[in-house]
Parts: sequence; C-alpha cells; structure tokens
Amino acid sequence: MSFHSMWAELLPVGRSSASGGYRRYAWTGADADCRTWFQEQAEARGLAYETDRNGNQWAWLGDPAAGNAVVTGSHLDSVPDGGAFDGPLGVVSALAALDELRGRGARFTRPLGIVNFGDEEGARFGLACVGSRLTAGALTVEQAHRLTDGDGITLPQAMESAGYDPGTLGPDPERLARIGAFVELHVEQGRTLDLSGDRIGIASAIWPHGRWRFDFRGEANHAGTTRLADRHDPMPPYAETVLAARREARLAGAVATFGKVGVEPNGVNAIPSLVRGWLDSRAADQASLDTVVTGVEKAAREYAAAHGVDLDVECESFTPVVEFDHALRDELARILGTETKLKVPVLGTGAGHDAGILSDRVPTAMLFVRNPTGVSHSPAEYAAEDDCAAGVNALADVLEGLACT
Amino acid sequence: MSFHSMWAELLPVGRSSASGGYRRYAWTGADADCRTWFQEQAEARGLAYETDRNGNQWAWLGDPAAGNAVVTGSHLDSVPDGGAFDGPLGVVSALAALDELRGRGARFTRPLGIVNFGDEEGARFGLACVGSRLTAGALTVEQAHRLTDGDGITLPQAMESAGYDPGTLGPDPERLARIGAFVELHVEQGRTLDLSGDRIGIASAIWPHGRWRFDFRGEANHAGTTRLADRHDPMPPYAETVLAARREARLAGAVATFGKVGVEPNGVNAIPSLVRGWLDSRAADQASLDTVVTGVEKAAREYAAAHGVDLDVECESFTPVVEFDHALRDELARILGTETKLKVPVLGTGAGHDAGILSDRVPTAMLFVRNPTGVSHSPAEYAAEDDCAAGVNALADVLEGLACT
Repeated sequence: MSFHSMWAELLPVGRSSASGGYRRYAWTGADADCRTWFQEQAEARGLAYETDRNGNQWAWLGDPAAGNAVVTGSHLDSVPDGGAFDGPLGVVSALAALDELRGRGARFTRPLGIVNFGDEEGARFGLACVGSRLTAGALTVEQAHRLTDGDGITLPQAMESAGYDPGTLGPDPERLARIGAFVELHVEQGRTLDLSGDRIGIASAIWPHGRWRFDFRGEANHAGTTRLADRHDPMPPYAETVLAARREARLAGAVATFGKVGVEPNGVNAIPSLVRGWLDSRAADQASLDTVVTGVEKAAREYAAAHGVDLDVECESFTPVVEFDHALRDELARILGTETKLKVPVLGTGAGHDAGILSDRVPTAMLFVRNPTGVSHSPAEYAAEDDCAAGVNALADVLEGLACT
Repeated sequence: MSFHSMWAELLPVGRSSASGGYRRYAWTGADADCRTWFQEQAEARGLAYETDRNGNQWAWLGDPAAGNAVVTGSHLDSVPDGGAFDGPLGVVSALAALDELRGRGARFTRPLGIVNFGDEEGARFGLACVGSRLTAGALTVEQAHRLTDGDGITLPQAMESAGYDPGTLGPDPERLARIGAFVELHVEQGRTLDLSGDRIGIASAIWPHGRWRFDFRGEANHAGTTRLADRHDPMPPYAETVLAARREARLAGAVATFGKVGVEPNGVNAIPSLVRGWLDSRAADQASLDTVVTGVEKAAREYAAAHGVDLDVECESFTPVVEFDHALRDELARILGTETKLKVPVLGTGAGHDAGILSDRVPTAMLFVRNPTGVSHSPAEYAAEDDCAAGVNALADVLEGLACT
C-alpha cells in the first residue's frame, strides 16, 4: 500500500467535522481505530506485531532478541483539534520506507522495528509522552496511576475500557536494551526549513521546556453589586501575568504561552473564585528558560498581592535540554549527503517528542520534513506531497545505511 | 412551618458538596426538587396552586380574578455555585410573612399571590429572568426557542424533559393586569445597609446593565515552536481588554467584570484559535455605562489589531435603568416607618431582578435585607437570622398595609 493510500485511509479517523481538526485522544474510540489500522498495516507486511506492557505498538522485521535493532516510528494521537501530520507522518513514512527498501531489494543485517507510541500529546491526561516515559522509567507507575482526565477517569480505567491491562504498566529496560538506534521522522513545527529552502533537516537538540500551573484564588461575588474596591478578583492578575509572559519571552528570545484556562464558577455575572492558567515556556538554553519563568512568577505574585488574591504556582512537567546522539546525527548527515545529495541543515526544536524521552537510554535522532507555514497543532498543519515523498526517501536511505548490507 | 424549618428543608437541595455552593439550574433535578417543595408549601397552607404558561409557580389566597392583587415572592434557582439567600430568601420570607399575618388574624381585602419565577439567574441558558421576561413580553417565543445550554439542549427541550409543555410559552398580559402591586424581598448584594447600620432597605432603582461577548479569533499553532513574531495569539489582546475594563470602570465609578471565558482548543501546548470573554458592566446611569463599554471595545479593537487577531463584539443582553414605582416605594416607606419604627434607607442596586422586568407592567417595589459582607453569588453569601426575621416582619407589615383591612 502506497504512502498516498495509507495517508488517505488515516485522514478521516478522529477528524471533527466542526473544526476540521483531529481529536485522537489516548484510549478513545478514535485512538482505537488508529491502533487497529497500525496492526493491520504491520500484519499486511508480514511483520511480527506486539503491544508492549505500556500499550505502545511494535512491528518487527527480524528478531529483536538479536539486539542492536534499528527502530523508527512516531505516534498517531493528536492534540485537541490538531493537524494530520504531527505524529502520523512519522508512522506512515516508516511503513512506506520499509516498502521502498523492499522494492530496492535491501537485505537487513539488523532487526528493524516500527513503533506507534501511545499518548504522545498528553491531550487527555495532561502529561505528554506517557507511553515512552513509562517505558524509559521517566514516569513511575504510581505517577501514571494518578493521571486523571477532565471527566475524572484515571489512566488505568481508560486503558481497561480500551481493552488493555493496566496491571502491566512499568519500565521496560530489556526492550530498550535491544535497540541500537531510534530515528523519528516528524513534520517540522516551525519555519526553519522553509526559510532556508530545504526539504529535510536533522535535529540537533530539543529545547528545555515545561508546564507551570498558575492558580489565582480570589473570592466569588456578584459582578453587578460588588464595588471594585471590595473585590478579590483573580481575573485581572491573571491577565497581567499573560502580558508579563509575553514580555519576558520577548526579552529572552524564548517562547511563553498561556493556551489553557479554567475559570470557576465561570458565570457571566459572577466574579471568579478561581482563574487557573497554564504557562508553557521553552528556550534554547536552561538559563534563558529560568529567566522567563522566574520573571513571570515574580510578576504574577506582585499582581496577585495587589488584588488581594492568593497564588499557587506548580511545575507540572519539566524536560531539560535534550542533545541528540552526536555520532548518530553525524551518521545521518553522512548518509543523506552521500545518498540523497541533499543539503541537510541541523536545527533545534521547541517541541517535545518520544525521541527526546528515549534519548537518555537509546542513541536517538530525528528527521524533520519542511512545513511551508510553520503551523502545527492546528487543522492548518501541512507538508507538501513532494516533501513528504522526500521524507520517505530520506528515511529509507537512513534505514538502509544503518541496517542493511 | 416556621421560617427556620422551611429554610432547613431547602438548604440541602442542589448543594454541591465539593464547593458548598448551589447548582439549582433551570429545569434540572435540583430545580424540580425546589419546585416540588414550593407546591407542597402552597398546598399545606390551603393556597390555590398553579403553574403559568411560562413555568412560573403561583400560590393564591383569594381569587386573583378579582384583580388588584398584591403579589410577593422571588426565585429558587441559583447561579453556578451560588449562595443560599439570593432568591430563596424572598420566597421563604413570603410564605413566612403569610403565616405571620394569619397569626395576627389579618383579614385580606385584596387577593394575595406568592410567586416563584423560573430561571431567574440564567445560569443554564445565558439569559437572566427568562420566566418573568416571557410573561412580560420582554422575550419573544422565537427568542426563547433559540436559547441553548452548554450541552446543546434548547429551552423547549429542557422544559419538556422536566414535564412542562413548552408549547404554551408566551406573554401573559391578563395575568399581569390582575396584579396591583408586586413586592420582592431580596438579600442585599452589596454593603450599603451594613455600612449604614440598617437591617432593611427599599430599592430606588436598578442600574442599567448588560452583557457583551468579545470573540478574539486568532490562529491555533504549536506553543513550543511558533516564534512570537509569527503568532496570531488571541490571549494577549484578551488579557489587555480585561485590564482596560477594570480601568474604564474605575474612571467612571461603575463596575465591569470578565467572569466567564471560553478558550479553543484550550490545550497547554497550543496557541488558542479563539478566546471568548464575556463583559458584564453596570453603572448608575446610562451615560456612564456607555462610556465604559465604548472605552473597553475601543481598547480591545486596538489590542486585537496589534496582535493580528480578529474581534467580534456582540451585546447579548441589555437592560436600561429601572426606576421602581415612586408611589409604591413611598407607601412602603410610610408603612415601615409607622409599623416597624425602622429607618429604611432607599438604595439603588447593580443587580437585575424579576421585579425589574415586571416594573414596566406592574407597580413594583423591592425590600433588601442586610448582608454583613456584601458577598453574593458565592457560597459565602449570608444574612444573619435576626435580619432575616426583621425582613419577614417588614414584609408582613407591607402586605398587611397594602392588602388587609
């Protein structure tokens, strides 16, 4: 089945007709449809299919027990109303690259794995890369058991509803020890390749990034009858904090975003008792990120105090800078320079990935495919068909260079 | 049944154990429990019970067809996580005042009605005073049919689920023509009586007030990888508009509140495509209110343009200033000054009420009971037992003065 046919099969799965975006959240019906599709694709190619203890899906050519396997893949879940490319491009390109190598008559000297990691986006339980974190031991079973979605359903309950046994959750060092290289192909989430005029890039590092929850707690009251002087309204200090985040990020050459907000009681004629906002911030280095987050928190505390509002700030997740394996990165550049005659720029990224999680345990690299607008996490996310084909070809070259005679 | 017993019966109905506040939304189970309670109280007193064509509940002593009736009452529904007093105090005090008058052996020369208006707070369908508006013809049947809650359920569907026929909705001029005076008792939603040291006050006017929906439409994108310069993020202009509202209200001696917000897609790592905020603003006079709303909208348009974000502003509801009937107000002051020997200050209010809706068609007055903190629309809303008793006594005096020999 061609790249084009696979892509067309996946396109309607979990797509909202209202927004045009994808709602493929972990352990939902849309997610199950994606997973069934992956299993069918694996079996149609005669690959050995398995689900690991954390619900990640694997398809093997050759025996992984032999060790030093080369693995590629990505994820099929989405952010709320996300695009078609973030995740699926890596999985579909992996399958298409295998087809391409078989067409070339390549002979594999190392086991080849194709993986679909579960719950990469964290759209449902608020934590990204749950499948790879569990496997790498970067998330404990106890922490995973406490993950709860917006309806109060826990991760184990959600897995059980989807037909998986949450009793097996946990680190999987034996599996990781068999992997000699992991290469994840991904649509670029930015405009670096577009601006440089290149189809394909290689990742240097993932910026350090984190999520901080700001809880501004005031006093609910009647919006029509409470004098301004008598208010403990958490909305103005929240608003001032949003602007402080933008200001601090600009000064530090970083990014900072308040993209998620919860208000209680959230009535038009009620002063809120609580405004909860989540700060997402990322920077090229740790010092810059510290400067941004410290600056935002300091401003938020001043604004909250001025309005007689309490503030709690909690770091919900943090990932330090990830430098991808230098030897593997250089090997990819050599292969692509020789085989595809492409100039392949090396670029950093502000986005987290399963590849970043695994990089502690496994030599890991990433390939990026050009995104003409830089738009991601949106229905408008896009990569041109020619560039996707160049991505499949580059991935096939890399797999051939690493795993074939 | 004493005021105290009635109060104790109502206290648990629709109370959230999580917040301690009330969630008595129109045509829900909690609302049905309140309505059943009202009917039982009416029947236990031998009053003629009826539901009108718009779902408001009435209990009659004497034949309303005789005309020139005196009506008192309020509502039993609540804002999200509201307090126990806003609404129920007026209904329970009405029943207790009738008991008090029977205890005094009062003889009625005019029909007496006690009313529980439906859906006063507008918590479910976003429009306040739906029951009284329909009755007064201030809301058309077509407009009422378009009211939809957060789950997409329309008002007619909700009424039907609750066992009421939405086919009868519409203006009810005959009913209003039989009412000679409507007196609504309500907990004060502010600190005027507390600051002046009075238990009871009489309303002069309801400030003009309205709701405006601000839709800031930007472009969803990845929060980690989109450069600040490439963003069309609707959150910063929303934040600046919140601060502009506070500033404009302070300058005009008015109030302005953003208490409800909706964000799409509302993901931590996604720049929003939409931030929707609702402005509630009120002022002592129309010119001041116009100044506030015009100023906020002007600022919002400038901020939106600076961020490359579209802005739509829509007025969702507006109520001009309501001056209560001067003759009835003076009559109440005379009765209370003579009978209860209370000094009864006359005060304005920023809160809307069914009494305000009816005042176009019926001579209408309001009594306020002291609120020691001014807090309302919150679980902390409170009135002291002594002050509630003074309220019942004052209402009984007023009803006796108006309707008895």
